[in-house]
Parts: sequence; structure tokens; C-alpha cells
Amino acid sequence: MQIAILLYDRFTALDAVGPYDILARTPDAETVFVAEQAGPVRTDTGKLALVADRSLAEVGSPDVLVVPGGPGQSALMEHGPLLDWLRRTDATSTWTTSVCTGSLLLGAAGLLKGRRATTHWLAVGELARFGAEHVPERVVTDGKYMTAAGVSAGIDMGLTLLGRLAGDEYAQTIQLGHEYDPQPPYGAGSPDKAPAHLVDALRERSRFILS
Amino acid sequence: MQIAILLYDRFTALDAVGPYDILARTPDAETVFVAEQAGPVRTDTGKLALVADRSLAEVGSPDVLVVPGGPGQSALMEHGPLLDWLRRTDATSTWTTSVCTGSLLLGAAGLLKGRRATTHWLAVGELARFGAEHVPERVVTDGKYMTAAGVSAGIDMGLTLLGRLAGDEYAQTIQLGHEYDPQPPYGAGSPDKAPAHLVDALRERSRFILS
Repeated sequence: MQIAILLYDRFTALDAVGPYDILARTPDAETVFVAEQAGPVRTDTGKLALVADRSLAEVGSPDVLVVPGGPGQSALMEHGPLLDWLRRTDATSTWTTSVCTGSLLLGAAGLLKGRRATTHWLAVGELARFGAEHVPERVVTDGKYMTAAGVSAGIDMGLTLLGRLAGDEYAQTIQLGHEYDPQPPYGAGSPDKAPAHLVDALRERSRFILS
Repeated sequence: MQIAILLYDRFTALDAVGPYDILARTPDAETVFVAEQAGPVRTDTGKLALVADRSLAEVGSPDVLVVPGGPGQSALMEHGPLLDWLRRTDATSTWTTSVCTGSLLLGAAGLLKGRRATTHWLAVGELARFGAEHVPERVVTDGKYMTAAGVSAGIDMGLTLLGRLAGDEYAQTIQLGHEYDPQPPYGAGSPDKAPAHLVDALRERSRFILS
């Protein structure tokens, strides 16, 4: 089994590393980071680069595709070579997945038409443009498509997918090994739970924070 | 303010990227990844490299130090240049922090003597060797020392520390932006909560999983 995780300029690191750190432990699976060109790819903050060991041309038919989000996504919505690669890869994948605004790239490639899906809460309106039906859940599965909400939701998606790939007990063992027993110091992780003035402010400042 | 995140061969990516993706958004802060030598550093799975933009020699006195864990930690417990760097850095830091078995490196550098601290649940016995008092909490603060439990606990630590650095409302805004409203598909994230047979099996197989 091959698991391919896409990188692109100004992706959000946790979107990719959350699922990676879970899924790379799938038994008998090869995990590869892939970008338009192999080499270091800078994250949204500019302060970190992850290395894509393979170019798109070198990864033809992964079994599992993971598309992270991040502010760099918006520059790729009409990027022919990438969208073609997503379509070609999806044609043979067992699972096509995304985290955060990565689902907008799947949508732009035409892969979410008529599908239930999710994305970052600030991008829900965008998702409908691609014919997807937004489901307000943290991880949404529709056939072989699994999409996660914003950034950190990729960890929950990774565990959900690992359960499908390797069984519930194996996924629980990885959760235990990663001590994933989250205890956020605040309860502000969703627009339903955060103080309304912070939600409003982030909506207004979302260009600053997210792009 | 400078925030330095240490990388070393066979660290666990999520240990570093969890706090990074929170703390790199601290206002007016510079975040740098640092390793013994600048360049790509491979994670524990061998499937991913993160780039350290600076060498230890280039980072002299960060305000915030973050030491991730991972199986590669065990090879560094008597590594003079690294332990010297940790001691020198700690001498002027405002915060000295760790995730997972990163606390064992702080301990080996002599920085946790008489301190309350935590580490990965499988490494609790090790921590006592360095004169630290283990506190069974997800994030433990003792003076300027903040240590987190295993792997994913670094996200909770990052938010806790961001609250100290930039205020509660700012940290809540970053939590909201990262949609950190965790909903793990299983409740197996700690040895108290996971099925006992999985805890026992992981203890036995910890060399395989963690090293």
C-alpha cells in the first residue's frame, strides 16, 4: 500500500503532519511526501520547510491520497498540472482524503460533486461552489472520500482512516502510543464553542490569519 | 522574541509540529528550527524530513526553547555538544519546554533536578533518574519549565504557552483558527483509558513502536 501526502507552497504543517504521524505507521504501507517538484516546501508561516521526497511525476497511483490545506491552496485552484494529477490519482485510489481547505482542491478537481464533505469552518461557503454538500462534522466519509475540518482535525481523520486500513485495535494502539488524549486549555476550538466576539474577529481577520 | 525548536535524527514529527504550528503565530516572534547541523533532519519513520534552517552554533539565546521527543532521543543522552547547548540556552531562556521524551534530554542536561515534570507515559520511570518529580498531567509547569506528555500533548502545551506569551484571547483565537476541537474516534489515548490488553501489549512492544 502506498500513502501519498501532497505538499505545496504555504500549506499548513499540522494539516499534513497530523495524518502523516498516524498513517505512516500503517503496517506494510509506504508513505511518501509529494510535491510538484521534489525538495523542500515552505509552510504558511515561512518558518519551516518539509521535504517532498518525490515529484508528482514520480507518484502515479497511490492507494491513499492525503491533501492538506493552508493559505497556499488558493493559488492552486486553477493549476492544471496539479488538478490533473489529483484526478489521475483519484481514478485508482482506494481512499482520497483531505484536511482543512485541502477539500477545496479536491473540489476544484471536480472530485466532490454530489459528495458529502467538510473543510475549515471559514471555508464552508467555498465548498458548495464545487457541488459538495457540507456536513458539519469533524470527519466526513462518503464512499472512498474522507474529508476533515480545519487543521487539527487531520489527526482525528488519520485515526479514523487507520481504523479502516488496519483495524480498530491497531488504531487504538497508535492513539495510545501518541498519547492522543487531548485536553486543550481552552474550549474555543469551534465557532459554536468559542466566544462570539473572537469568532467575529477571526472572520474579519481571516485574510490575515489564513493567507 | 525568538522561539527555537530543536530537531534531531529520528525525532517524532508531531512532537515538534504540534507546538510549532501554534507558537509560530506568536505576535512579534521569530521561530527557528535548529539542529546540530543545518539541513534536512529525518523523523522516526524515515519517511519525512523537516529542514533545520539553523545549526546549534547559530542559535545562541532563544527566549523559548522547545525540545521534542522521539526514539532518536535515546542516542543523545550523553551527547556533550547538544547537552551543553541545552544548558547554555536554558541559562538565558524565558521558557524551557519539552514534548514527550524531550524531557529526558532536559533531564540529561541536568535541568529538571527537583522540578515537577512529565514525559511520554512509557518513559515515566526514566524521568525519575534525573531527579525530576513526575506529575501525571498532560502539561506540567514548574517555574519556567513546561513539559508535555506524549507526542500529541505538544499541541495542548503550545496553546498553554501561547496563552502565557500572548494572552488567553489570542491563544483562543489560534485554537479557533486551527479548529482544535478534538474528537478522537476512540477513547484509547492514555493508559488509564485504553483497553488493558492494548496497554500491556504496547509496553511489551514499545521498543518496536518507539525506537
